[in-house]
Amino acid sequence: MDIGLLGRRMDEAQRLMDQRDIDFLFVSPSSDLVYLFDYPAHTSERLALLILPRSGKPQLVVPTLERSRSAGRESLVDIHTWNETEQPVHVVRDLVRSVSHPTIGVSDQMWSVFLVRMLESIPDANFVSASPIMRELRMTKDAAELENLKRAAAMADAAWTEFATTASIAGMTEREAATALSQLRAKHGLEVTSIGICASGPNSANPHHSTGDRVIQQGDSVVFDFGGKYQHYTADVTRTVYIGEPDAEYRKVYNIVLQANQAALDAIRPGAACQDIDRAARKVITDAGYGEYFIHRVGHGLGLDGHEEPYLVEGNTLELKEGMVFSDEPGIYIAGKFGVRVEDAVVVTADGGIRINHCDRELTVMN
Amino acid sequence: MDIGLLGRRMDEAQRLMDQRDIDFLFVSPSSDLVYLFDYPAHTSERLALLILPRSGKPQLVVPTLERSRSAGRESLVDIHTWNETEQPVHVVRDLVRSVSHPTIGVSDQMWSVFLVRMLESIPDANFVSASPIMRELRMTKDAAELENLKRAAAMADAAWTEFATTASIAGMTEREAATALSQLRAKHGLEVTSIGICASGPNSANPHHSTGDRVIQQGDSVVFDFGGKYQHYTADVTRTVYIGEPDAEYRKVYNIVLQANQAALDAIRPGAACQDIDRAARKVITDAGYGEYFIHRVGHGLGLDGHEEPYLVEGNTLELKEGMVFSDEPGIYIAGKFGVRVEDAVVVTADGGIRINHCDRELTVMN
Repeated sequence: MDIGLLGRRMDEAQRLMDQRDIDFLFVSPSSDLVYLFDYPAHTSERLALLILPRSGKPQLVVPTLERSRSAGRESLVDIHTWNETEQPVHVVRDLVRSVSHPTIGVSDQMWSVFLVRMLESIPDANFVSASPIMRELRMTKDAAELENLKRAAAMADAAWTEFATTASIAGMTEREAATALSQLRAKHGLEVTSIGICASGPNSANPHHSTGDRVIQQGDSVVFDFGGKYQHYTADVTRTVYIGEPDAEYRKVYNIVLQANQAALDAIRPGAACQDIDRAARKVITDAGYGEYFIHRVGHGLGLDGHEEPYLVEGNTLELKEGMVFSDEPGIYIAGKFGVRVEDAVVVTADGGIRINHCDRELTVMN
Repeated sequence: MDIGLLGRRMDEAQRLMDQRDIDFLFVSPSSDLVYLFDYPAHTSERLALLILPRSGKPQLVVPTLERSRSAGRESLVDIHTWNETEQPVHVVRDLVRSVSHPTIGVSDQMWSVFLVRMLESIPDANFVSASPIMRELRMTKDAAELENLKRAAAMADAAWTEFATTASIAGMTEREAATALSQLRAKHGLEVTSIGICASGPNSANPHHSTGDRVIQQGDSVVFDFGGKYQHYTADVTRTVYIGEPDAEYRKVYNIVLQANQAALDAIRPGAACQDIDRAARKVITDAGYGEYFIHRVGHGLGLDGHEEPYLVEGNTLELKEGMVFSDEPGIYIAGKFGVRVEDAVVVTADGGIRINHCDRELTVMN
């Protein structure tokens, strides 16, 4: 734990708050709190909250039970504990009383149960999103963050390579296949937080299919979308395989997706707008006649969260900067037939986009 | 999926809303949405929302990408999809426009990012907690829910029994021991959603210890707090073991905790206040001279969520009813030395409390 780094991140947040006229930032357990205070707790019905004032010392409100989670960082914050029979929102109210009509930025993932109580307890406050502050801090990764993301990606790649070259999945259910890949993810060092997506046959045409009990069979396209965590940083990769001998249409669609993935990568450069990356991939797919089957944005930011800013979507004119990391994941989904998606994580560098996933993305046949 | 049951649950929610003068209920992906609409999606940055009006047909706002998650339940709701370039909060605003100054109950776990946008888009609304409605519906379990909870508990018990009688954990790290128990939980049928708590030696004195890399050794008290899901319903059990030969003080503390666990069970009856159950356990521990070391409430409700209402805590005068399910988990935590907790899930019946965890809770020595 690098106390100096956490202190600098909180200072920078305060600087941005002052620019944007935000009096307090309320940060609940989530990736935002991991970033600012290295506090990787699950959110729960017990309020824990970092209160960052526009200037001065940060305040931490935590259940007495969880005080030990702040061990080693006491110098960074004043700690206010509450016990099982107290109302923590009263503690929070007292800590912002110094400012009348405060503008308070709340972290995106704070549960509404707390915000509803705050609306009542701090009725003169103007609650806004903390996201403009937090995304500014978190979107651009430093060298240590990039290293964690690269290591997570390498672990996912190693798991995929072992899976694709050794597993025999025809006859398995989606759940069994996804579980087998999960075990390899764990073996290669990832903390596995979800079984991930295994979508087979017609299910592969649903980008957000819930991995289920369908049995994988000959003639299936099978989409595997998986990841995991390393040092809180996320891997997210998708590979699509075919069971048996793919026909000409499937080969054609697969190659269009691959070209779209490359086109998005080629469009990346500092200063490009987020929507330009989506457009680059979409143009390839649309020009090939499959535009209506590419039914989602081309990518999302990747870091402490599996989905975070920047979002690569039409309408987002935010400019890319060096050190941003996001997914490049075009897909073609033909309802009732099959879907194909190829996803890598990429980093924006001065020279353009660089993939950090390297496992084989060519059309792969499994059995 | 029982469409009729979901319809009845939504009807009952509307009846309660009318009683409490709530115009709309906003239910986002969470256990609340599993309960009302069998929609077990992870919450994400893409808004999905069930809008229950005080009367009339429920409305579902979902990303086009996730429309298929409602398959088979289209008769229950009007579905409004939004695509990647649209602002879903505008769809929500239009759906509540018929009522001026609406009172809107929002589900506890909805992310604040959405509530903040709604504060801006529906400025005349009065946002309150949906919890008084949802807890009324969810606290009392029906026969099918009880069956799921009992099966989840039996799977956790089976995993523990195999672990306690076959594993050798001295020399393992906490993480290794917790992982071994996780594998048994999966083997016995539970969906494992977390590694759970393994807290050894002095760490056992921290009720919310984060399972880490400490090596388990002779003379350690080791607390295992673990669970998992079966058909979305949760198991939650804690057992504490000793490595080697426990001394007299440890035996004494262990037995006090066991007696407190029994005293809480004995206090359970329909009509008793939640705080009475906490008091019953606390009296045993306080009378034995360890009151200051029992630093948390005695229990929490258990169902679709691992922590839900009712909370068994001083100050909660809510009356118990038949069909409520909660944890009974007193503990004694002596900082720097050791902690002991014994937790079972219990059901309130007409005849009193009945445990649904049955694995051995007597003092167990492992090596």
